[in-house]
Amino acid sequence: MTLENISNTKVFGGWLKQFNHQSTSTQCKMRFAVYLPPQAEVHKVPVLYWLSGLTCTDENVMQKSGIQRVAAELGIAIVAPDTSPRGDNVADDEHGAYDFGIGAGFYLNATQAPFDNHYKMYDYVVDELPALIEANFPVTSQKSISGHSMGGHGAITIGLKNPQAYQSISAFSPICNPMNCPWGQKAFVGYLGDNQQDWLEYDSSELMKVTQGNTPMLVDQGSEDNFLAEQLKPQSLIDAAQSRQYPLTLRMQQGYDHSYFFISSFIEEHLKFHAKYLIKS
Amino acid sequence: MTLENISNTKVFGGWLKQFNHQSTSTQCKMRFAVYLPPQAEVHKVPVLYWLSGLTCTDENVMQKSGIQRVAAELGIAIVAPDTSPRGDNVADDEHGAYDFGIGAGFYLNATQAPFDNHYKMYDYVVDELPALIEANFPVTSQKSISGHSMGGHGAITIGLKNPQAYQSISAFSPICNPMNCPWGQKAFVGYLGDNQQDWLEYDSSELMKVTQGNTPMLVDQGSEDNFLAEQLKPQSLIDAAQSRQYPLTLRMQQGYDHSYFFISSFIEEHLKFHAKYLIKS
Repeated sequence: MTLENISNTKVFGGWLKQFNHQSTSTQCKMRFAVYLPPQAEVHKVPVLYWLSGLTCTDENVMQKSGIQRVAAELGIAIVAPDTSPRGDNVADDEHGAYDFGIGAGFYLNATQAPFDNHYKMYDYVVDELPALIEANFPVTSQKSISGHSMGGHGAITIGLKNPQAYQSISAFSPICNPMNCPWGQKAFVGYLGDNQQDWLEYDSSELMKVTQGNTPMLVDQGSEDNFLAEQLKPQSLIDAAQSRQYPLTLRMQQGYDHSYFFISSFIEEHLKFHAKYLIKS
Repeated sequence: MTLENISNTKVFGGWLKQFNHQSTSTQCKMRFAVYLPPQAEVHKVPVLYWLSGLTCTDENVMQKSGIQRVAAELGIAIVAPDTSPRGDNVADDEHGAYDFGIGAGFYLNATQAPFDNHYKMYDYVVDELPALIEANFPVTSQKSISGHSMGGHGAITIGLKNPQAYQSISAFSPICNPMNCPWGQKAFVGYLGDNQQDWLEYDSSELMKVTQGNTPMLVDQGSEDNFLAEQLKPQSLIDAAQSRQYPLTLRMQQGYDHSYFFISSFIEEHLKFHAKYLIKS
């Protein structure tokens, strides 16, 4: 597995690095970013995986969230994958829409042609990328997962399906019940087909009802988010968590929208939440 | 003077707002951004003006620097103007280059056609914009000025030429001696003409030699900045400051480049530097 280093930028005393590599999961070249805090020059550090939302790449969280400041303070590496496979050979939405296909992989394994050859973002994020990170960087096997919007859906579904793998889960403005919203339904029909039984394993609210895990989870949602009622549906996740006393803290943050300005305002609290579980004193 | 409010975004408990207005200085529509920290809902707050670099708008510093976090902590409003006049009637570089014309106003008053009608960024930043801000927002008349690259040149020249107006001056990676670098020479010939005597009043190192002021100044420069040797020339500013014992602190920051990642790493220190002079205890 060859990593091609394409950028190195000093930030808050640590290093932000981007790499390309040929992915076995998605069968195409994938780019990811890793932020190594200053502590990584002295000892191995735990990792927070960050999954971005529709249209994003590895760059959004690194440029707009201010996450490096807190990661450097706490001694946590941040890894941000892309949001889908990309390239000339990768199928896209037939109309080039922003909410399906390239930039919109939904962190699942597609089963439907023509998406079933490259769109294996679940395998990529759960297995391939952590193995790559742990083999090539000064990190421990301790990891947590977070994300925004489609990436919040990714973080919660992946965290719930792999309760032994992640110490903690968090999300900003996640798509909480994709089976019951337009973004999710379009993605699930296109990637998974019409059988709604196949959708259950990628729906946070449905997974919450049946998970055997109790991984601590923090969710922040802005009250003025334009997508709140139609697409995000946090009440579904709250109801599912209450039905089985899952350790979910979901906070409605008054006045905030869906943007990275919202994320930047609370990213410190999310990293400190993860640090409680990632860094044993 | 009518302000058209075009966005309102909650960030760190305060509000980031963008406005359009018809400028009397530049004779065109100008956009600016203002961040009002939470304290501005209770009492008037001082203002830090931020001048951006080549190709930027009001948005870069607000999206990438993390400035709102510190402004909210300290109780300082941030105002970011655009980097030049814009619009269909505004003359641009004849080849559309990034370093002259639109997006590259150099914070001066142009005297050469066809730029002398709209390119009056000095008057806009020094007079028109502060009057507009103080008339329309809950701010005091206490102000400081900072900026990046071309905007660092703007902050230092404007601060040095108006020692009574600004409490403190800072810059990241400023163009310190534009008369002697390619970016500055292209801009000064185009906006001011061939007579180098006319360039002296917009050159930080030359102004430093003759200013009557002693406004405290902090400059940070990354050692791995690709533009350091050819375009930025901080030694010229250091030499000028030493020639007259000007209170300049210029720090060479090892390993950092020219990007907003560098700015984000030290913006807290810059705001705390300004707060010492803006906020009297």
